Formats: sequence, structure tokens, C-alpha cells
Amino acid sequence: MMVEMVDLIITARWVVPVIPRHTVLEHHAIVIQQGVIIAIQPADTVFDHYQANTIRHHDQHCVMPGLINNHTHAAMSLFRGFADDLPLMTWLNDHIWPAEQRWLSDGFVEAGSELAIAEMIRSGTTCFNDMYFFPEATARAVDRTGIRANLGMVIIDFPTGYASDALDYLHKGQLLHDHYRQHTRITTSYAPHAPYTVSDDTLSAIAINAEEMDVPIHMHIHETAGEIQQSLETFSVRPLERLHRLNILSPRLTAVHMTQVSDNEMRLCADSGLHIAHCPESNLKLASGFAPVSQFIEHNINVSIGTDGVASNNDVDMFAEMRQSALLAKAVSQDASSVPAHIALEMATINAAKALNLDNDIGSIEVGKSADLIAIDFDELNCQPCYDVISQLVYAVNSHQVSDVWVAGKPLLQSGQHTTLNRHHLIEQTQLWADKIRLEK
Amino acid sequence: MMVEMVDLIITARWVVPVIPRHTVLEHHAIVIQQGVIIAIQPADTVFDHYQANTIRHHDQHCVMPGLINNHTHAAMSLFRGFADDLPLMTWLNDHIWPAEQRWLSDGFVEAGSELAIAEMIRSGTTCFNDMYFFPEATARAVDRTGIRANLGMVIIDFPTGYASDALDYLHKGQLLHDHYRQHTRITTSYAPHAPYTVSDDTLSAIAINAEEMDVPIHMHIHETAGEIQQSLETFSVRPLERLHRLNILSPRLTAVHMTQVSDNEMRLCADSGLHIAHCPESNLKLASGFAPVSQFIEHNINVSIGTDGVASNNDVDMFAEMRQSALLAKAVSQDASSVPAHIALEMATINAAKALNLDNDIGSIEVGKSADLIAIDFDELNCQPCYDVISQLVYAVNSHQVSDVWVAGKPLLQSGQHTTLNRHHLIEQTQLWADKIRLEK
Repeated sequence: MMVEMVDLIITARWVVPVIPRHTVLEHHAIVIQQGVIIAIQPADTVFDHYQANTIRHHDQHCVMPGLINNHTHAAMSLFRGFADDLPLMTWLNDHIWPAEQRWLSDGFVEAGSELAIAEMIRSGTTCFNDMYFFPEATARAVDRTGIRANLGMVIIDFPTGYASDALDYLHKGQLLHDHYRQHTRITTSYAPHAPYTVSDDTLSAIAINAEEMDVPIHMHIHETAGEIQQSLETFSVRPLERLHRLNILSPRLTAVHMTQVSDNEMRLCADSGLHIAHCPESNLKLASGFAPVSQFIEHNINVSIGTDGVASNNDVDMFAEMRQSALLAKAVSQDASSVPAHIALEMATINAAKALNLDNDIGSIEVGKSADLIAIDFDELNCQPCYDVISQLVYAVNSHQVSDVWVAGKPLLQSGQHTTLNRHHLIEQTQLWADKIRLEK
Repeated sequence: MMVEMVDLIITARWVVPVIPRHTVLEHHAIVIQQGVIIAIQPADTVFDHYQANTIRHHDQHCVMPGLINNHTHAAMSLFRGFADDLPLMTWLNDHIWPAEQRWLSDGFVEAGSELAIAEMIRSGTTCFNDMYFFPEATARAVDRTGIRANLGMVIIDFPTGYASDALDYLHKGQLLHDHYRQHTRITTSYAPHAPYTVSDDTLSAIAINAEEMDVPIHMHIHETAGEIQQSLETFSVRPLERLHRLNILSPRLTAVHMTQVSDNEMRLCADSGLHIAHCPESNLKLASGFAPVSQFIEHNINVSIGTDGVASNNDVDMFAEMRQSALLAKAVSQDASSVPAHIALEMATINAAKALNLDNDIGSIEVGKSADLIAIDFDELNCQPCYDVISQLVYAVNSHQVSDVWVAGKPLLQSGQHTTLNRHHLIEQTQLWADKIRLEK
């Protein structure tokens, strides 16, 4: 029998591949060559076929696809706990936007992104969909740390330290896109901030550019009732209808939040093929409203999950967000069978991959996909006993149980320790920023 | 200067005493003698006054009162993930009650309680308010492990392996009460299961007995709309009104869940002086409804927090529950300033102590109170940076950051390791039970 030499074999007590749905493989091995999954086999026979330079046994662990955080503002981690218990517009106008005006810089964004990336890796996220200023600073942190990201070419109709006007934002975005177009872990999308901060002309241009450049669009939409009221006053239409007229609603779009959706709009969303990034903890914390997640799913709208920025969460813990999504949907729909565990798991993995147009590469453990994987140590009291591995992943696992993380087959976390980040240096750097920010608070 | 010799001095980077409200003491020491807090002082001068047999420095930690889980069914930890994504009555009738009929025993309850207690200690809970069959088995686990608990003298109008009828339940409850009346960490309360499972006669007897024995009452009330409908059909009144007529509503009562409350009932609750145990994750998971927590608080009703049993949560993580309480109240009340962090912290500590009539002893760090304390390691990425310690405790801390736990000055967890429990033995014992239960599932 021919034994093939490969880079990496990971064996695990359980493998939850996400595709096929609802599957738990026991005592299986994942075979990885050049960062790609080339086989998934029972562990007891894998070594008849393969030998590897690196073999990792995870005998009390569940291995699953890395979680995908489909909406965040990574650099805002430097504003963790900076302003809490405030409504969205007060929080933005009186706290977050002034702080951003004061502190926003390439260095701030690089430091904040690095902190968020470290926290994401620690808690099992292997890919994030970001929207923030100075995305090239985030890109450097992504490149260096080994995580995967889709970075927004951010556009907002007011000047910041990053750009002066819509054209300047668009121009800087395109430079980012061009610079990283060959990067294996960095993709870009258009990220117009929100209907109430971007003009019709700019949105029309984005719709055309996104088509030409074949990139997704990532936008906050219908976050609050106030946003809808304001749009009715300014544009005489609700934001979704306005975006529809401007050709923004399409399978390219990930609409973030979507807490206010009429029946007509539900059909409009379904017909357009757009994706939704549900951010339950941020929606709760800012009292923005309850997204009708079960209805989205009934309408076959693709729903993924995001943490939003740390300033409104206050972490980037996708295990907590996945659990919250499963719990909250039940109460909102008054149906305890809504968003069962395996659906929540899909929302946090493959559904986000689809929204990012990366589902050929990530979001499940399948042959031919990138080895973006995480191992979760089930030998903790809060995972005992274990009748149902998928239930455990969604309802019981604590993100600190993530022991190992790989992106494209490269280890980023081993036994809870970062391999591409100096934790001590990172905490020092964070505290230096916080000391400055605190002084002027 | 006289230097007094004491048992234990704990110093900490931050001390959050809960009383006074909204206070964060920096670099303070807690001085403990015979399990009681005798002084709280700046760390740099404490050793001028005291010397101790044991000194513990927590230089990167926050020390706060142990969390109090004000509603759980500890032994149900053995049913973790046993039946998910089902409505309350299906879940109870088709899964939980049959499993209980099959498995309920003294041994089951002791093993399940021990598992839950271990998980509670690991995640920072120092006291729990329990309602379950075979409470004497739970009592043995409480006694042995060093945690504090209020144990329900449970009453339900159908026979179980534990008791045959209401009189038998009452009798067994009184034996429990008598056996532990001198115990320093175990108290008891009447725990009639719910309005729909306990008769008028039994409830009247409980109201009288509770008064005579001076113990609290702990009961599921208005958990679902269905419960109210059923009461209207059977008794022609809503459950709260029926309980009011039976003299159950009083400052002795902790009403658990309370997701359905009319304006009249809100006033009735306020006037009666009852306490509420809010169980947000269980209410979400079983789609029971949204408790109007902000309205309770506006009416000066004392609100505490419980995890409910593991079978409907699926853990006993009070940090997650505290955070959930703060987040959910904002969205339900449509006011992001509802249940700010310091209020959520009170709900998880001193408010529960009040409900249990234990607020002279626990629930805050004050001179004269028992040293029921926890230390949380803030040197984790998800707690960086730190602008606001109380915000961090509620919105960012992960329960696995709890490093040390004391009850009455005795260490139960040291640097994340249990001191009164054999973790290995516990997991083995849990798996033996799970193997049996799984076979007949």
C-alpha cells in the first residue's frame, strides 16, 4: 500500500464538519497538504494511507471549522468599556465619534486590530469581515498574524483622519484592493457605512464598482427605528427601498443588523439574494431592536453572525454570539424550536463564508477547502456529560476552551498559546494606548 | 503600633465591594478572621495593622463578592444537552419528566449536584438557591464541597421516586430543615414547584409553615403564557391572584421567571414585597417570554438572577447570566440605559442575598460579612484595555477567568484548581451516569 507523505494530520475525538448538516464524526482524522484538506478519514486507518511531518492528536477535543465573524470593527477593541449603557445615537455622537476624531490614526488601527485579532484567535475565530478606517493598518495586522479577513473599503460622507471626502475614501479603498488582490488570506469589499451617512451618488458608484471589481458590499442597514424615521423625513422612503433603487440590494450585499423589517421588505430581501449579518449582542446592548432571524430563515435568506465592534459588545467572542443567536431567536419568534443548534453553527461558519463569497474555500471541513480549523477541549466541567456534541458547541462551550487554531493549515494557537503574536508585547502596547485615551476622556 | 494576627489577608489590584454602589477600590486588602471580613484597607498600609497566617496577592485581579445563583436545579446537570430546541411543555412532558421518573434517586441527585457545584465554583458562584428532589443528597454535596446553598423543601402534586404525595414531600422537607438548621452554610426554604403543580390546600399550609419556621418560599411563577391560560381555565384566576389569595405573596417569596406580568400584577408584586429571580437564558431557550426587568426595577421590586437548571441553559455560568440580564433588559425596555452594569452586578450578588434573607452575611464585601469572595484574573486579552472595572465584570469577563474562590474564608478554588473536589473522579462519576442515561434515551 502506498503511504503518502503530507504536511499535517489532525485527529480528534469528534469532528463536526458542518457540511453535511448535523454530522458528528467520531475518532476521525483530517489530512492537510499545503494548507488544504485532502482527506477526512477514520483515525484508526488514516496512517495506512498517510504519514505526516506534523501529527496532532486531540483525544478529548471537538474539531470544527473556524468561526467566521461576519461583522466587526476590529480596531475598536481599544474602546472596550469606554462608554456603556447608552442609546446608539448618544453613544455615537457624544462618545464614539468624538473619540474617533481625536484618536483615529494608522497606528491606533493597527494596535486595535492586533488586539482584536489576538482575542479572535484565542476564542476560535479564523476569519472576520471588517469595516473601519485605515483598513491598510488592519491588513498589516492580518498579514502578520496569519488570520483571514475581508477588509472593508470604508466610505462615509464626512471627513476623518483617514480620508477627506467620498472620492478620497473610494480612492484609498481601491488602493487597498489593488495592493492585496493576490493575497491568499485578505479579500476586500465595499463598506459604505450606512444609508444615513452615504449619499445616493456615492452608493450608485459603489453598486457599479462592486460589479466591475467583483467584490461584496458590507453595510449597516435598518439598525434602529430612528434610522428609518430619518430616511422617511430626508428621502421620503425607507432605507431598504432607497438602496433597492440604487441597485445595492443583490447577492453581493451583506446587510448588517436589520432589526426593522416589514413584510414587503422581507420579500424584497429574499428576492434580491442579499445576506444578513445578525449582531444580537450589539442590538441588545444599544437597544436597537430584535432582528426577525427565524423569519429570515423561513424566507431562505442567508443569515450569518457578527459581534459588531468591541465598544458595543464588549468582546469579539463568536461562541457567545452563536449561543445568543440561538437563544434569542427562540424568544423573538415565540418558538423554542427556532434556530436549533446545528443552524446556529451554520450561521457562524458556512453562511458567513457564502456571504463573503468564500464558500469554496472556508466555512466547513470538506476535501478541497482550506484547513481553517479549531479544536475545542471538551474535558471541562461545563461540557460534562456530553449527549450531543453540536448542542454542546452551541449551548455549553466557553470560548476559553478553544485550544488550537489553524488557518490554511498554519497553527495560530497551540494549547491556548498564540504562535504568531507576542501576548506580553500586545498587552503593553494596548495599555500605552489606553493610558493616552483615558487621560483625555 | 499593635499588629493583629489574623487568618487571611487578600490584596487585589481592584476590589469591587458592591456596597457602596458603583465603588471600585484600587490596591486594597481584605482582612479575614474566622471566615469573617474584619477590615477593608489600602494594601500599602494593611500590614501596619495586621499580619496573617495566609496572605494572597492578586495583583492583576479584581476581587468581588461571590456570585449568587438565585434559581437552579443543580442535579439536572446530568441532563446537559439531553433535549434541546423544544418548547417548555414538550420538553417537560416528553423528555425531562420521563427521564426524571426513570433516573431520579438519591445517588443521581448527589452526583448531579456535585457536578453543578464544581462548575459553579469554577465560574465564581459561591451560593445557590436550589429546587430539586432528594435535597438531602444535594445537602451532602454542599456540606462536603464547602459552597453555600439554600435548599428547597420541594413539593409537587405528583408522586416521584422521592415522595408519594404532598404530605410526604412536606414531611421530608421538614426533616431536611431540622437536620441542617445549625449548619453555617446550608439554609432551607419551601419550594412548591409551580402554581399548576401544587394544590390550594398545600399552598395554604406552606404559607403558614413558612411563617412559623421563618423560612423563604421559592416558586416558579408566570413562566409562560400557557400557564396563565391554564390557570384561568382551572381556577378562573391568573396564578398570581390565586397565590395572593393563598397568602403566598410576601417578602418571603422569590418568584422565579415572571415573564407575564400585567400592570395590576406589577403593583401587586411591589406591594407584597416579593423578590424576583430572573432567568434570562432559560426564558429565551424555552421561548417562555421576556421578563419586564426594567419595570420591576422601576417599581422597586428586588430582582436577582438565576441560571435555572443546566437542562435549559445549558450551564450554570452566572457571569454569562449577569451579562445576559444587562443586555436583554435594554432591548426589552427599548432603553439602552436600562440595567447598567452596576445594577446587573447587584442583581447577581446583594439582591439575591436579600431574597434569601442572607444579606446580613453575604452579597457584598463589608466588615462583618462572611468572606464569600472571588478573584477574577484581568490579565486576559478580552479584558484589555480596562477603562471601567464594573463594565468589564459585566460585559467582558469570561467565567473561566475566575482564579480563586473563598466561602467563609475557606479556599474552594486556587489558581483555577478545585481544593475540595477531585475533578478527575467527578468526571468519571459523571460519565458513568451519562452512559446509563444515554443507553435508554
